[in-house]
Amino acid sequence: MAAWGKRLAGVRGVLLDISGVLYDGGEDGGAPIRGSVEAVARLKQSRLKVRFCTNESQKSRQELVGLLRRQGFDISEGEVTAPAPATSLILKERGLRPHLLVHDGVRSEFGQIDTSNPNCVVIADAGEGFSYQNMNKAFRVLMELEKPVLISLGKGRYYKETSGLMLDVGAYMKALEYACGIEAEVVGKPSPEYFQSALKEMGVEAHEQAIMIGDDIVGDVGGAQRCGMRALQVRTGKFRPSDEQHPEVKADGYVDNLAEAVDLLLQHATK
Amino acid sequence: MAAWGKRLAGVRGVLLDISGVLYDGGEDGGAPIRGSVEAVARLKQSRLKVRFCTNESQKSRQELVGLLRRQGFDISEGEVTAPAPATSLILKERGLRPHLLVHDGVRSEFGQIDTSNPNCVVIADAGEGFSYQNMNKAFRVLMELEKPVLISLGKGRYYKETSGLMLDVGAYMKALEYACGIEAEVVGKPSPEYFQSALKEMGVEAHEQAIMIGDDIVGDVGGAQRCGMRALQVRTGKFRPSDEQHPEVKADGYVDNLAEAVDLLLQHATK
Repeated sequence: MAAWGKRLAGVRGVLLDISGVLYDGGEDGGAPIRGSVEAVARLKQSRLKVRFCTNESQKSRQELVGLLRRQGFDISEGEVTAPAPATSLILKERGLRPHLLVHDGVRSEFGQIDTSNPNCVVIADAGEGFSYQNMNKAFRVLMELEKPVLISLGKGRYYKETSGLMLDVGAYMKALEYACGIEAEVVGKPSPEYFQSALKEMGVEAHEQAIMIGDDIVGDVGGAQRCGMRALQVRTGKFRPSDEQHPEVKADGYVDNLAEAVDLLLQHATK
Repeated sequence: MAAWGKRLAGVRGVLLDISGVLYDGGEDGGAPIRGSVEAVARLKQSRLKVRFCTNESQKSRQELVGLLRRQGFDISEGEVTAPAPATSLILKERGLRPHLLVHDGVRSEFGQIDTSNPNCVVIADAGEGFSYQNMNKAFRVLMELEKPVLISLGKGRYYKETSGLMLDVGAYMKALEYACGIEAEVVGKPSPEYFQSALKEMGVEAHEQAIMIGDDIVGDVGGAQRCGMRALQVRTGKFRPSDEQHPEVKADGYVDNLAEAVDLLLQHATK
């Protein structure tokens, strides 16, 4: 534990993953992870800056924040970096008209976007919406484009709900990439642009100043470290013991949960 | 065309792909490709040996052959190399108990296999069976195994039905590979073992003696060539004009359909 203190010194801003760190999702809305409501409150009372950086793409930012507030979290929409609003901006900037393969819960984020005569496909965690028919429709749209553009909201392999592990959008992104012989553009972690946009909103530099706390060894920890940030993995959410022997990614620290991470940060960060 | 003759000289045995070469599949059973019924008949009347080498995994071999015979093709079960019976043998040999993610039409090929307490997943072209729920179930079975074994009946990207292009099993294989961080074992084209087993049944050597005729530039043409065979691509089925400029695979020849391939073979093969 002695080494820990050094690694956290100088942190000024904290990026928090949401699912698996704040709460475990589920059909009933899920449940907060023990100690996380208080941990967020303590962080926000400290001198550290805090921002939430999620790959949640089944819910609109409004719906997600509402759910978390009902669970007791101190969080507002303006504090959340989420892939759907980020993608919506990109579509507008580039004049792209998407065919949407997304969950109904997030469709409102694309309310202002022209979806007629599509010239790209946007894929997000559609859950049950990943039927063969819907996947085949997205595939056919891509195959009919001269230069197929596939935008994926994150590329997670799986996540954990109260009922167990769930396939995430990354698996379906890979399916379309392979079938069409193309490479998707990822909006979300671990894309460096995505982390940078969250850091910019927080006003903190990646190097020396920022730390990511997440449950995904590759998407959260590896992605943040490639941006020059430090990163902790929590042993909640989709964490699996084998993550601590991951062949490519080593977190700056492993903690039992967000509460322990915050204990350590408040003790060591600003020293 | 002058170069053509030389390339076909010495051929003694012909491997024929079925879907997209003999017929185009479809919900109504599909329809024979113009000239293919007669082309198969002419081949079988010649001195050339003929075998059918398919990745069809939605139907049992019995059902497939019945369908083709009703369309007028001269074909029997013993002449067909198909992935499901080949997989069934492998499962028995290795004592594997599969969780089956397959089309109902091919389930009978696994009738003699113990599927209790599964220690592997077998995935085939399940069509509408590729629901999120079924994919997630296969994913969870794999994640619970200490050494996950995934066997995929072929790894095609897509195929063509009368209604249009259809996502094939390869896309879903890639999804599970990515989600679980594993590599599937492929039974079917383009696996070299699979081509070799078909050639062995025909009693013909890959080098010098054998040619593959298929509509898939990668699975049929590229796969056969890697085994030392020659290969022709037909401009039927899933053929797309861009295949003739494929960055990695160049067929020994491109023909409009099986009828043209047989014309050329009968003219040049045994010279």
